[in-house]
Amino acid sequence: MTKPADALQRLRRVHEETVVGMLRSYGALSRTDLMRLTGLSRTTLFAIISEMIERGAAVETEAAVTGARGRGRPASLVALNPSAGLLLGIDLGRRRVRVAVANVAHEVVATAMADVPVDAGVAEQADAAADLVRRLCLERGIRLDALDAVGVGVVGVVDGAEKEAAGAVPRATPAVYLPVTERLEREFGVRIAIDNNARLAALAESTWGAARSVADVIYVRWSVGVGGGFIVGGRLVRGAHSAAGELGHVSLDPDGPPCHCGSRGCLEGRIGHQGLLDAAAARGVSLGSIDELVAAAQDRVPAVCEVVSAAAADLGRILADAVVQLDPARVVVGGELSALGSLVLDPVRAAIATLALPNAPRRIDVVPADLGANASAMGAVALLLHEEPAVPRHLRPAAR
Amino acid sequence: MTKPADALQRLRRVHEETVVGMLRSYGALSRTDLMRLTGLSRTTLFAIISEMIERGAAVETEAAVTGARGRGRPASLVALNPSAGLLLGIDLGRRRVRVAVANVAHEVVATAMADVPVDAGVAEQADAAADLVRRLCLERGIRLDALDAVGVGVVGVVDGAEKEAAGAVPRATPAVYLPVTERLEREFGVRIAIDNNARLAALAESTWGAARSVADVIYVRWSVGVGGGFIVGGRLVRGAHSAAGELGHVSLDPDGPPCHCGSRGCLEGRIGHQGLLDAAAARGVSLGSIDELVAAAQDRVPAVCEVVSAAAADLGRILADAVVQLDPARVVVGGELSALGSLVLDPVRAAIATLALPNAPRRIDVVPADLGANASAMGAVALLLHEEPAVPRHLRPAAR
Repeated sequence: MTKPADALQRLRRVHEETVVGMLRSYGALSRTDLMRLTGLSRTTLFAIISEMIERGAAVETEAAVTGARGRGRPASLVALNPSAGLLLGIDLGRRRVRVAVANVAHEVVATAMADVPVDAGVAEQADAAADLVRRLCLERGIRLDALDAVGVGVVGVVDGAEKEAAGAVPRATPAVYLPVTERLEREFGVRIAIDNNARLAALAESTWGAARSVADVIYVRWSVGVGGGFIVGGRLVRGAHSAAGELGHVSLDPDGPPCHCGSRGCLEGRIGHQGLLDAAAARGVSLGSIDELVAAAQDRVPAVCEVVSAAAADLGRILADAVVQLDPARVVVGGELSALGSLVLDPVRAAIATLALPNAPRRIDVVPADLGANASAMGAVALLLHEEPAVPRHLRPAAR
Repeated sequence: MTKPADALQRLRRVHEETVVGMLRSYGALSRTDLMRLTGLSRTTLFAIISEMIERGAAVETEAAVTGARGRGRPASLVALNPSAGLLLGIDLGRRRVRVAVANVAHEVVATAMADVPVDAGVAEQADAAADLVRRLCLERGIRLDALDAVGVGVVGVVDGAEKEAAGAVPRATPAVYLPVTERLEREFGVRIAIDNNARLAALAESTWGAARSVADVIYVRWSVGVGGGFIVGGRLVRGAHSAAGELGHVSLDPDGPPCHCGSRGCLEGRIGHQGLLDAAAARGVSLGSIDELVAAAQDRVPAVCEVVSAAAADLGRILADAVVQLDPARVVVGGELSALGSLVLDPVRAAIATLALPNAPRRIDVVPADLGANASAMGAVALLLHEEPAVPRHLRPAAR
């Protein structure tokens, strides 16, 4: 049962987000125009604006002669502070850390990457990311005093953090990631949001990429491991314990070989990096990495193509189940393996066509991801944009 | 990209829902109090109120001496019209139609049921439902001139209807259901919303039942067929073609027997009514209906208990996959079979414990449904409450 007090507090936040939204869509506006556009009372509106100006989120400007009024005494206008609202996205990967910087208009303006040892702990990864950000800002002349927040993507299940409210980002950070958030808070002195980096890649594809303008999407990232993320009704599915989207741990065979997750016969064991290299070796092709496997498949080495096709069929079977359950408009396949195009996508399409309500007249696109290696870092920025309290979707600025 | 015009139109609706929400939470309020509570401008607020009074949604009342002000000249107050906002839910089932009536406070005040021939078409079912409503209103003295809208639950995939916006109820009604909506529009002269009745049962459990106060829920209805519905972040998952939640058509075995959906080895074929009766017959127990099967299992007939346990294990395997993907806080099992309690729930719990990220420290409750046979009819009412344009969740009145 919602307490009226809470409801009003949140209502106030919605009103503030509405004002921000209007300023983003229209640029500088007079207080009178803002009252007309938002329907807010003078008292409410002026309180919101002064508070925004105080914390540097908005600035007072003067209407140019060609401005909102056009003639007469130029009215004082309110605009978003262009040097505020910088957002930083960090992806702590198994072998690399990546960062993305977005401006107040939510455009990604800079990205960078650095290698880290495979055995690096999260703390070491966080150090590497902090250094990388410092170097990037120096090169590009980006001033971080305008930084609003930092989003972080991490490998693995970000579980254990109960959600406070529907759709809210977990408040508590799992213990294993505390070194990361503490390190980055110390470095940047702003709020840190953290999530699984496959889910963040899904969010990025939904915000800027292959899933843009589609409200219901199943995203899978087929790489060293197999991860995923679901967009339902335009929102990232996080789950009750922030463990949603773990497509790699759906079991193909409950009696199959044990998986590190504790289950048996998981998809990741079959088609993850190790499973693929083993299957290739069994066919007499010895490969050292996922990149070598992708290269061999692109060179159409028959045995490797067979391995990839068979694995893609297994992936397709799991995706077909997910399609039956969630009925998406689009399935997006990301990760290194998606570079193989139809070799990967066609078996997936075939499995969905035969196993996912074949008699139901509907079209479900199966497409490769758009964003490539920076998807998760960009998704960490998107996480900050979509973080609760969210602007009601229909009030979100076009830029988003 | 959202056109500002749309955004403003929707913003206006949000504001109207806010006013309604405040009147529901606080009862009668003066216009001044409403301005203070909602933060809306006099112009915006007064326009909304006059419009509501015009269409009979709100009424002018006078503050009692003990009212909002307490003394001095009693101010004129605005209140929701108690005789308005009646909602009607109709469930068109295979063998029965059921109806539920809810008042302006969204409390279900009356339900009723009538049998229909198994071979009845949707049009005949709609006629039966209309008669049933007329009789119920006569008996209970319910005046339908206060009726706001009618929600309808139907068997099968309500597919083919593309959604206009994220979370929106499909605009177009699939051709097969047109006789229903046309018949009921003729009868009641109000807007009709239609959805799959298993999904509606999930929505009802989430609104009033076993899934209440839980934002992420997997609901399965195990009855003559096997249906389901997912609640994600507090919202019903409808899917891009309104086909989400079809747990019965997830394939246990892609090489298994063909299913009416066009796929093979579907869960429904294995554990649906026919599959169960066949399995019992194969064990020498001949049963004529699902009710007889449930009764026999409750009498602990060994062969029937074995059949049900094995089927529950199959159900558990599919639910475990869904749990890995969606990470719910709770799994709710409804339908006739859920009456068997632990005989059904324990195999499901076991499958989830062993197959759904066993190493992830999280608690997922598996519980029977609360609402029984009227769940879908009540869900058809809930559909109208949650219908888009939805009040942002945090602004919804406590009653919801």
